[in-house]
Amino acid sequence: MTEALAKQYLTEYRAKTNPLFQEFFRAKTKDAIAIGKIPAQLIRRFAKTALKGKRVRGALITLGYEIAGGKEKKAILDASLFIELFHTGLLIHDDLMDQDALRRGLPTIHKEFEKIAKKIGIRSDSAHFGESMAISAADLAFFLSWEKLMGANFPPGRIIKAGEIFTSYAVRVTYGQALDISTQLEAEEDEVLHTYMLKTAEYSGSLPLLLGATLAGLKDVKRMKALEEYGRSLGWAFQIQDDLLGMFGRKEEFGKPIGSDLQEGKMTLLMLHLKKKGDKRQRAFQSKILGKRDITKPEIEKMQTILKKSGSYQHVTNRGWEYVERGRKLIPAVTKDKKLRKILESLIVFTMERVS
Amino acid sequence: MTEALAKQYLTEYRAKTNPLFQEFFRAKTKDAIAIGKIPAQLIRRFAKTALKGKRVRGALITLGYEIAGGKEKKAILDASLFIELFHTGLLIHDDLMDQDALRRGLPTIHKEFEKIAKKIGIRSDSAHFGESMAISAADLAFFLSWEKLMGANFPPGRIIKAGEIFTSYAVRVTYGQALDISTQLEAEEDEVLHTYMLKTAEYSGSLPLLLGATLAGLKDVKRMKALEEYGRSLGWAFQIQDDLLGMFGRKEEFGKPIGSDLQEGKMTLLMLHLKKKGDKRQRAFQSKILGKRDITKPEIEKMQTILKKSGSYQHVTNRGWEYVERGRKLIPAVTKDKKLRKILESLIVFTMERVS
Repeated sequence: MTEALAKQYLTEYRAKTNPLFQEFFRAKTKDAIAIGKIPAQLIRRFAKTALKGKRVRGALITLGYEIAGGKEKKAILDASLFIELFHTGLLIHDDLMDQDALRRGLPTIHKEFEKIAKKIGIRSDSAHFGESMAISAADLAFFLSWEKLMGANFPPGRIIKAGEIFTSYAVRVTYGQALDISTQLEAEEDEVLHTYMLKTAEYSGSLPLLLGATLAGLKDVKRMKALEEYGRSLGWAFQIQDDLLGMFGRKEEFGKPIGSDLQEGKMTLLMLHLKKKGDKRQRAFQSKILGKRDITKPEIEKMQTILKKSGSYQHVTNRGWEYVERGRKLIPAVTKDKKLRKILESLIVFTMERVS
Repeated sequence: MTEALAKQYLTEYRAKTNPLFQEFFRAKTKDAIAIGKIPAQLIRRFAKTALKGKRVRGALITLGYEIAGGKEKKAILDASLFIELFHTGLLIHDDLMDQDALRRGLPTIHKEFEKIAKKIGIRSDSAHFGESMAISAADLAFFLSWEKLMGANFPPGRIIKAGEIFTSYAVRVTYGQALDISTQLEAEEDEVLHTYMLKTAEYSGSLPLLLGATLAGLKDVKRMKALEEYGRSLGWAFQIQDDLLGMFGRKEEFGKPIGSDLQEGKMTLLMLHLKKKGDKRQRAFQSKILGKRDITKPEIEKMQTILKKSGSYQHVTNRGWEYVERGRKLIPAVTKDKKLRKILESLIVFTMERVS
């Protein structure tokens, strides 16, 4: 059970950060209440979604910190939450762009405030009000995350270095997002993997590990490079498994409706392979279904069958495991510590074996 | 000509920062081109709007810095641009929420990318694509602004202090924005002024002055307090004049269509006064017009006449000048320097006398 160690690491991180995260939101909610009813609703609703995250990125910050020999356990746990705040903000914008209705098993923020608009009698269009509040909620997430990083209990020079690394990746994420929403049917696998790298792999894998190491004061360029590379492979595998779960997972575990990428017309690796390698009838079905707003359950099931028959499912799964292998090979260059090596090994395997 | 000095200060700041700002965007565009065509379009279009700003907030950072005795003129000019990046991001979100088509005399970003969607053959809805790209453009603005602040050429401790002040105000701006889009017809003048304070006054007046003083290392609590209070009055006057220009200004100078607040159903101080003090026929006309999507030029002109007859124009103008007076009284506590006092005096008067 290689993945048991990873699960344990993530579970422990969640348990340790739960009280810190809750306390943070209690204080912020108090501030918001003093300002007004709508601000209070905004932070409460945001907190609900933020607290439900898997917190993989936060855990990777603490792991990067440990790898670099950091000893301030309490300070790094608290500081690491900044990326969870930030990430929830990105997801809120992402859901708005993808017009998703469900996130982490909860209604998305724009959908929630669309409902609230009707209740409190907002004069303008309810859907537009919901979207505007979601934009505000994400902005709030960004600013709170920044505030958390600035207030971290580390030497100022390290915090600024971390801030610089963080923003350079955040800019790339935004470009990745812009590429993602403009990806055309004619894309090549390389282009899609490039978008995945910008949008997810570097940001979810390399970045948190580098941030943790930076806050610990690591300056060894070779080890930083190895962390970055390992993180990128981890992130790629993560995004690929996300695509697979989005098509073949279970909604209750995944927290999002299955088939939503399909409905949104997303050019995922699965769709790309089918488009290139599927037979005529399979491709005709794909053309009919991809981007269809009122897609039905039987249509999604038929697509699942087709993706298995065409070999697309197997091809994409293989790509994911290739990244797992690539990442594994980098572990010796990352750390000499046997326990940490095992965690890194377990994590990258778990990334492809997870169901949620 | 009290306002001549303010005009000169702003003009000089613009001239000095022009080459720095252009160089910044040249470098960032180069990075974006290496990533892809869409990222390049995104940064180019963002740069166009960012470069056209009045840069009042950036200038206030340098003024706060001078007041606090800072001597690193080149470093503060460069660092001050961070707030101009940030502010352009806020405006992009604001325009999306208000569904405005024009900003700084240019099409708003969401409108621009709606057009581009059609050109490049985006499969999804063009308006939605435009909105998604505008969300991305604003996110980009925020991350670039943060990057600029982190990279500023000042001692790390000061940068972090500035970062902390900045984020606490940014959070309040977001709450102000959320309040603004949910303001109901039943609002009271105090509530509207509270929203103005959060959304504009503190952020546009107090914040940049405090940031400049912080980067200069000022720690004198009394002077910081005076700067904050002066800045708040300046900001209030600024927002009030913005409302007045939005209804009575000239589009060519103001850079936005006249009457757009009216069309969006905004509960400005002007509308609030008319609702309380207008006669029956005036209020009937207001009910008919406020929030009317296809408002006509004669209707806007009729509203202008009504606002003058009802005394609303005069009332709101008086409120603005009250803030000018309030701010003026604080100047002696801000600085002993005669030249700087004159600039502060000139600035707050200019805020109410400006036409753009």
